Amino acid sequence: MKSIVIHAPKDLRVEDSSIPDLGAGQVRIKMAAGGVCGSDLHYYNHGGFGAIRLKEPMILGHEVAGYIEAVADDVTTHKVGQLVAVSPSRPCAACEYCLKGMQNHCLNMRFYGSAMPFPHIQGAFREVLVADASQCAIADGLSPGEAAMAEPLAVCLHATRRAGEMLGKTVLVTGCGPIGVLCILAARRAGAAKIIATDLSDFTLGKAAEAGADITLNMVTTPDGLAPYTKDKGQIDVLFECSGAAPALHGAIPAMRPCGVIVQLGMGGDMSLPMLAITAKELQLRGSFRFHEEFGLGVDLMQKGLIDVKPLITHTLPLDQAIDAFEIASDRSQAMKAQITF
Amino acid sequence: MKSIVIHAPKDLRVEDSSIPDLGAGQVRIKMAAGGVCGSDLHYYNHGGFGAIRLKEPMILGHEVAGYIEAVADDVTTHKVGQLVAVSPSRPCAACEYCLKGMQNHCLNMRFYGSAMPFPHIQGAFREVLVADASQCAIADGLSPGEAAMAEPLAVCLHATRRAGEMLGKTVLVTGCGPIGVLCILAARRAGAAKIIATDLSDFTLGKAAEAGADITLNMVTTPDGLAPYTKDKGQIDVLFECSGAAPALHGAIPAMRPCGVIVQLGMGGDMSLPMLAITAKELQLRGSFRFHEEFGLGVDLMQKGLIDVKPLITHTLPLDQAIDAFEIASDRSQAMKAQITF
Amino acid sequence: MKSIVIHAPKDLRVEDSSIPDLGAGQVRIKMAAGGVCGSDLHYYNHGGFGAIRLKEPMILGHEVAGYIEAVADDVTTHKVGQLVAVSPSRPCAACEYCLKGMQNHCLNMRFYGSAMPFPHIQGAFREVLVADASQCAIADGLSPGEAAMAEPLAVCLHATRRAGEMLGKTVLVTGCGPIGVLCILAARRAGAAKIIATDLSDFTLGKAAEAGADITLNMVTTPDGLAPYTKDKGQIDVLFECSGAAPALHGAIPAMRPCGVIVQLGMGGDMSLPMLAITAKELQLRGSFRFHEEFGLGVDLMQKGLIDVKPLITHTLPLDQAIDAFEIASDRSQAMKAQITF
Amino acid sequence: MKSIVIHAPKDLRVEDSSIPDLGAGQVRIKMAAGGVCGSDLHYYNHGGFGAIRLKEPMILGHEVAGYIEAVADDVTTHKVGQLVAVSPSRPCAACEYCLKGMQNHCLNMRFYGSAMPFPHIQGAFREVLVADASQCAIADGLSPGEAAMAEPLAVCLHATRRAGEMLGKTVLVTGCGPIGVLCILAARRAGAAKIIATDLSDFTLGKAAEAGADITLNMVTTPDGLAPYTKDKGQIDVLFECSGAAPALHGAIPAMRPCGVIVQLGMGGDMSLPMLAITAKELQLRGSFRFHEEFGLGVDLMQKGLIDVKPLITHTLPLDQAIDAFEIASDRSQAMKAQITF
Repeated sequence: MKSIVIHAPKDLRVEDSSIPDLGAGQVRIKMAAGGVCGSDLHYYNHGGFGAIRLKEPMILGHEVAGYIEAVADDVTTHKVGQLVAVSPSRPCAACEYCLKGMQNHCLNMRFYGSAMPFPHIQGAFREVLVADASQCAIADGLSPGEAAMAEPLAVCLHATRRAGEMLGKTVLVTGCGPIGVLCILAARRAGAAKIIATDLSDFTLGKAAEAGADITLNMVTTPDGLAPYTKDKGQIDVLFECSGAAPALHGAIPAMRPCGVIVQLGMGGDMSLPMLAITAKELQLRGSFRFHEEFGLGVDLMQKGLIDVKPLITHTLPLDQAIDAFEIASDRSQAMKAQITF
Repeated sequence: MKSIVIHAPKDLRVEDSSIPDLGAGQVRIKMAAGGVCGSDLHYYNHGGFGAIRLKEPMILGHEVAGYIEAVADDVTTHKVGQLVAVSPSRPCAACEYCLKGMQNHCLNMRFYGSAMPFPHIQGAFREVLVADASQCAIADGLSPGEAAMAEPLAVCLHATRRAGEMLGKTVLVTGCGPIGVLCILAARRAGAAKIIATDLSDFTLGKAAEAGADITLNMVTTPDGLAPYTKDKGQIDVLFECSGAAPALHGAIPAMRPCGVIVQLGMGGDMSLPMLAITAKELQLRGSFRFHEEFGLGVDLMQKGLIDVKPLITHTLPLDQAIDAFEIASDRSQAMKAQITF
Repeated sequence: MKSIVIHAPKDLRVEDSSIPDLGAGQVRIKMAAGGVCGSDLHYYNHGGFGAIRLKEPMILGHEVAGYIEAVADDVTTHKVGQLVAVSPSRPCAACEYCLKGMQNHCLNMRFYGSAMPFPHIQGAFREVLVADASQCAIADGLSPGEAAMAEPLAVCLHATRRAGEMLGKTVLVTGCGPIGVLCILAARRAGAAKIIATDLSDFTLGKAAEAGADITLNMVTTPDGLAPYTKDKGQIDVLFECSGAAPALHGAIPAMRPCGVIVQLGMGGDMSLPMLAITAKELQLRGSFRFHEEFGLGVDLMQKGLIDVKPLITHTLPLDQAIDAFEIASDRSQAMKAQITF
Repeated sequence: MKSIVIHAPKDLRVEDSSIPDLGAGQVRIKMAAGGVCGSDLHYYNHGGFGAIRLKEPMILGHEVAGYIEAVADDVTTHKVGQLVAVSPSRPCAACEYCLKGMQNHCLNMRFYGSAMPFPHIQGAFREVLVADASQCAIADGLSPGEAAMAEPLAVCLHATRRAGEMLGKTVLVTGCGPIGVLCILAARRAGAAKIIATDLSDFTLGKAAEAGADITLNMVTTPDGLAPYTKDKGQIDVLFECSGAAPALHGAIPAMRPCGVIVQLGMGGDMSLPMLAITAKELQLRGSFRFHEEFGLGVDLMQKGLIDVKPLITHTLPLDQAIDAFEIASDRSQAMKAQITF
């Protein structure tokens, strides 16, 4: 079995490894598609992000789907041949946060392809994966590529819930990579009435418009594009900050309506914030991190045709071109989501 | 009639002015007590804060109480001789935000003693004040000094509401000036189970303990005092950040529980925030600004003995010692709330 | 000018009356379409509902749209020739509830075509209407019939907000008249993942399916249709009770998930409720009444194509067939929404 | 070891039984105090309530406290000699609801002294109890009687949380048995500004006043006592309905403020509700059932002196007078909480 292993910045290798045994409650999956995520790119380009650093070789990948090729004797919920989206999130189901319904804050989380703990949690970019049946959402009717989008979609559905009531809201999305564009889809699905999207790239803004953004603004060519929304203390109800860039957040604050909600998804380092404006307008800044039940929900919404992620998948490359896939995915002027097939 | 006028940093004068006529719906009040607030001190010491700057002489003061000495013919709700706490907040009752119940974000707010608009809104440190009856909460049974505490108490009751459900919560208060100590009283009144307070001054921490803080930490002498609360991703449910100092906020974040709430009351400038921690722990940072219906609530709770602000009033000086009052109020090593009598 | 006046049960007359003058801030509208609502039918068939009884002749109608034919000199927001949806809701903008953003509970509400106060508030089924410009949502791009649907749509958007977060929820709608079907559209727009609809009429259930219900159940022919949803204490997150019939509510309770939300829109009389189940499952029953800002939102969502109400308009009759329109609207086996043109 | 066993209505026996072995993670407790609860009285007087019926002899009791006399080898959190309040609630920690933080809706709950499942779950009125250490809240500093109040107090703390924000609210409590009076204490602790209590007994209303109710109304002698609160559509923000009696709920609805919250704790059968008023005022009726983390919170608040339950304990009888204790507890004219000592 081949897998995609990161050893150091820019040192990505396709390597052989053995297939694990099938344990109780598990299924064996012939992997079909895997999407390259921003955090994969951080490991590839920089060896990590913030304080999280690669300390040993690690299989990358956590946006994956495949076909079941075997199920353990005690598994009755899944069948050989089914397409499944595999959730990379494996909370312990026993800690304080799991028993509060806050599984994304599990004290013993084992999330695929993460260097946060040591030893690192190995990822899912591999030809064959053995996973718990409970991690696998049956995705019949979707393409493997769509099924592999369940993970980033879940991130954005979770962020939408973090934002609170969405029906009729005016929404701003700063940063139109895959997470930004999926936030547009999720916010629209949840009832947003008006969606404005900003980025520095016309390519991604085109994708944002295709996903349903009512207005797109290139902050390079129209740096004052948000000025009309600063009227009467601000017109934006909800901001999804997906860029992780301080100027995006800073620039949006004058356009935020009093008591407006800023959901921070973009993973940046320290940022300087205008606290006087945040205090005087009573803005609400809320982090959003991963997901839990939104994974199955994302698959369900795609199956029902209520969310369509297909336009986001701009590139699909075979396993032996993994490095190309990572290079393409790093280029915001031409790629939205690059996926690898196994 | 004498009033206290700020002309420039450190240029505070007691000046004569005329008494306005009594209009429809109004009462005339012989002022009895006025508390010196942090924003008064900013004008006195620095001529303003952030972008808000003194551009003309302005009467200071917005924490005031007095006795009614006349009522307009059409006023039936108030009587001569009653002690009233006077709310400095005068929303327009007609703009978009007033009609949403968000009067503290009124587009046409006229808040006493504020240089935010120009011409500045004149304040209430004067011997005689004419005010709308609807601004005046009847405060019978309280002392004038207590009644004058209704305004900062309202700020903290509002902040407590902004924090959401409080029953049983573990609360941290950073910065134990009058606002911090009133937050302790308000959080306890709302059901907080455990309250931790930090400051740099033993004097204010003593007042915090007197107000009911379970634990007080001097961050000069015990800089690692919050370490025990960082266990299992954090133990603090709610932080009232009352210092406006970036180190206080930074230092508290590792102790915040996932999804914990940070209410920012302290008015600082730009602050650098650890966005990765805020995102990954899904913290919620909420500004809190002024108040509306909490003004009457504060008077009510004091009258019922459910909140006792008396220990906070450390100094009371007559009008002709106004400058002394401002100097004392600026000294956190000996003063909590300094009030002026008229 | 002709208008449609109810004198007593089954005594509906088309009568002449004079056109009011155009006052400041007002527009004169040549009416184009008016929908017959359930409350209109209650006045027509029974002379009222509950304690609300007709005590004098009253012009009916509150779901209306038309073309502006004149604007007062001071009106700058509207122009002659524009199609407008006219909100029947006229809160006072001055009472306690208006200043809390709860305009639908205005103490001095003047809602078109309502016998709740006396003298009754005259309605809008008339050839010419003079209204405040602020009541008129510009509906360019819609048909008059669609614009006249803004009112019942607003009722259902409000109910959806009352239900709280909707993204991914399993929703049950009991009673598939116009309100029930519009709740299906609104709940889907707000992100409901699965929608089940029940009624006693196959015709209305067909409309429910057309509006997007995933499952429709005729409770006459499949009285146990909800049994599968009672598994594990219940599977329904949100119930929109639109029938006003006690059996519908009773029958749904075993299928409600613990802590589930029941939004009651149907206007019935007293109902016997199984309080032990409500208590032990911690269900939440919430009334929903009229709307406020959702009126403009409904027009906006229709204009953007995010909600399509056209399939609900099953009958359109001219003014001189008003009685026929009321008879047809009363027949749930063939009519969803019957509208009158002027 | 003796225990108190109900065989049939009015057939209560003190019987001998054997002491279970001490398992891993468990402690053995010499019981000190047990309170007679309303549900115990239902079994004693009527053999059950609603559809829940006694089908085999069952040890009663779920409000208990005692001293640890042995701990299993693996227990490090508890020590011999400690006073503990024992939670009767034993959720499975594995079902869907436990993993959502809704343990009070556990699909496999094993709650002491409950005939809901069959075989019934045996209760805790016995001389010696073996319990999981995790059920036992260390109650040092309290009396055994106070510690035994942790359970009903937890019910009321949970109900207060179900009611939402409480700071400054006007609260009505209907029914002033132990649950009603504990709701007064809990609502006050959570910041209620004004508390009105109604009952049919002057004795219980006296206890309500002692607990802090601002106004008490005997609905026998002042049946119109709530009339002043019906002004302007209603003045009550939150109702804790603790009587389980339909007239109490009916009578309170005209006094409820629009969008007011009714928390139903009283366990009655079917009740007829005025749905038109509930809908038009958009009232919110919420069931409240048992508790989870509020058990430990109750002990904590009592230990800190933030809630004082001592005045509620009106009678304390030894085990051999158990029948007397049940008879006294049934008499609302003289008893609030009757406890048994072991």
